[in-house]
Amino acid sequence: MLTAWTEAAERMTKGHGAGPVGPTQGASNLPPDDTGEAIGLPPSGLTITFGFGPGLFRTADGKDRFGLAAKQPAALKALPHFPGDMLEPQRSSGDLCVQACADDPQVAVHAIRNLARIAFGTASVRWSQLGFGRTSTTSVSQDTPRNLFGFKDGTANVKAEETKDLSEHVWVARGDDAKAEWLAGGSYLVARRINMRIEVWDRQPLEDQESFVGRTKDTGAPLSGGGEFTEPNFDMPGHDGPVIPPDSHVRLVHPDFNDGVRMLRRGYNFVDGSTDLGVLDAGLFFLAYVRNPDTHFVPVQTKMASHDAMMEYLKVTGSALFAVPPGTRAGEYVGQALFA
Amino acid sequence: MLTAWTEAAERMTKGHGAGPVGPTQGASNLPPDDTGEAIGLPPSGLTITFGFGPGLFRTADGKDRFGLAAKQPAALKALPHFPGDMLEPQRSSGDLCVQACADDPQVAVHAIRNLARIAFGTASVRWSQLGFGRTSTTSVSQDTPRNLFGFKDGTANVKAEETKDLSEHVWVARGDDAKAEWLAGGSYLVARRINMRIEVWDRQPLEDQESFVGRTKDTGAPLSGGGEFTEPNFDMPGHDGPVIPPDSHVRLVHPDFNDGVRMLRRGYNFVDGSTDLGVLDAGLFFLAYVRNPDTHFVPVQTKMASHDAMMEYLKVTGSALFAVPPGTRAGEYVGQALFA
Ligand code: HEM
Ligand code: HEM
Repeated sequence: MLTAWTEAAERMTKGHGAGPVGPTQGASNLPPDDTGEAIGLPPSGLTITFGFGPGLFRTADGKDRFGLAAKQPAALKALPHFPGDMLEPQRSSGDLCVQACADDPQVAVHAIRNLARIAFGTASVRWSQLGFGRTSTTSVSQDTPRNLFGFKDGTANVKAEETKDLSEHVWVARGDDAKAEWLAGGSYLVARRINMRIEVWDRQPLEDQESFVGRTKDTGAPLSGGGEFTEPNFDMPGHDGPVIPPDSHVRLVHPDFNDGVRMLRRGYNFVDGSTDLGVLDAGLFFLAYVRNPDTHFVPVQTKMASHDAMMEYLKVTGSALFAVPPGTRAGEYVGQALFA
Repeated sequence: MLTAWTEAAERMTKGHGAGPVGPTQGASNLPPDDTGEAIGLPPSGLTITFGFGPGLFRTADGKDRFGLAAKQPAALKALPHFPGDMLEPQRSSGDLCVQACADDPQVAVHAIRNLARIAFGTASVRWSQLGFGRTSTTSVSQDTPRNLFGFKDGTANVKAEETKDLSEHVWVARGDDAKAEWLAGGSYLVARRINMRIEVWDRQPLEDQESFVGRTKDTGAPLSGGGEFTEPNFDMPGHDGPVIPPDSHVRLVHPDFNDGVRMLRRGYNFVDGSTDLGVLDAGLFFLAYVRNPDTHFVPVQTKMASHDAMMEYLKVTGSALFAVPPGTRAGEYVGQALFA
């Protein structure tokens, strides 16, 4: 998985978007149409998702940037600062976002690289992030993958089968935002690059790790018992307060304590080598799709940032929010309802 | 693939190497034995290769560090500076090296992380590098993968089947170095983190790219014609000099012009996000196993650094050399012939 946030240059809406076109045969002074590194590889399940950041609509000082300001979704604005945020500007925000997912990183890299290349002179890459091992299952038929804390991640995620919850919590509905009907059928993408203090975490007793999360490491069952998919019982008493601690991650972010809201998490693990201090520059590239960040992300994140026992082992180094337009039908282009 | 170069602390040979031992059952104040993120995953073809850097033998000022100095291989010393080297100290050298290769990055990361964890207090991670899509085939039955310049990379590599060439060019032989017989059956590993100027490369005409490499992008055949595995004909005339240019990569590094030496290349592509300038921090993590770096790597690299047309698109940001001891038999430990 490779994601690139880009900065759109002023040429964006002035019709220069296409880049080099046509075959290079007979025009050998042009660069090749394709960069080549994926020649011979299968499609590898490649999917590409596009998003629009606040900067596509308005400049930093609030001016209409490309004549789209009237259509800016009300919820599409910079996320607030959360405790624990140590954001690097060069890993945050962006005007456009492109997320490429594939079974083979070479294919995902290929997609991002060629889109960036075609956009040369119109948009440039602001930041990008490579991830692997999607932590969030989206189907009951998949095994739940694990994050770099070693815990199953995705157990209680919204599943593809839960169409009612997808409508209620993930897809923007017609009427949600009168100024931004173009976004109906789309979603908001919250991206958070969350560094994990891996080496410190690894030195914590298993019991502590499990009490930070609220689930067991082995099976992923809630600490109140049962199997991975048993509903947690937050009232079950333990030695010293509830057996699922009040400051555990699953209790804090659970819908029961967050006005019933859910999110579609699609996180990836990342390892970007080691820092100058010799610790892994690694963690969770948290990606969540929500119907409205104001109701479905910001309150949950605010609570988590202040109270979650896991926060001691986390450092948020990147953050961005995008509006993801609905999928395109044959003959349409991405975001047509916005630009047309 | 994840590789970590470590710095051994002075405790190295003082018997503290084992780290936390024994099961955590009944000792719940200990961290778990396993960090967990690979639970449930198959072995995924995991292989682990260890190497010893010059710093394991001598301190920077030449003092015997752990009583091993008398056994330091003569060729195991810092590589010379090459034109084009813009080395970052935090991505270079190291006392020990651990290379983990697997079909699933989660498994490779797991291995490195747990070895680093077990070594806590004895050795610490100096740098690490994640790579994907091995560029170098080692068997005639494999398709040749591509590097991020889009070219097949590995065509003329030493193959597993070429046992004579492996003996001659890759494995250290008994008698090669009287002081370091422990290395017989092992090899030297040269590691070079080579950044590619991807965006600039992508704007070069196909014809130019092919003349820099000396092979076609599509099939990987030499510019003198034939198929991928046809031997290049360096004398074949073109419009303006030989059809395979004298400053092309394959001509410069070809055994015919390098005293017949070959190397076993096992490079990986890497993409570490984007730099502050918005260009991909990506390239080739060049790894080569050679019988002797002084004869099999340094002269070739020197020539390449000064004359290779491809160099304009490369920047070497990391560099290290290690002696890789032969594999272990049941009951042995890694490097036993050195330490025993
Ligand atoms: C590195 C950071 C994080 C780690 C390691 C982590 C880990 C986990 C784990 C292990 C679970 C339990 C298994 C599951 O249901 O998937 C979980 C659940 C969940 N997490 Fe996180 N998480 C992280 C960040 C976040 C953030 C930033 C949010 C949103 C503010 C979030 C929201 C959720 C939600 C909504 C659930 C499901 C709760 C439920 O319905 O039971 N997580 N997380
Ligand atoms: C980013 C840097 C590099 C790129 C993109 C690159 C690319 C290639 C390509 C495309 C080939 C032809 C296909 C093949 O036989 O594998 C090749 C061959 C080769 N390269 Fe490189 N290479 C790079 C760095 C190096 C370095 C640093 C060395 C050693 C100094 C090296 C040594 C060789 C050798 C020995 C061959 C085989 C030549 C032959 O026997 O025909 N390469 N390389």
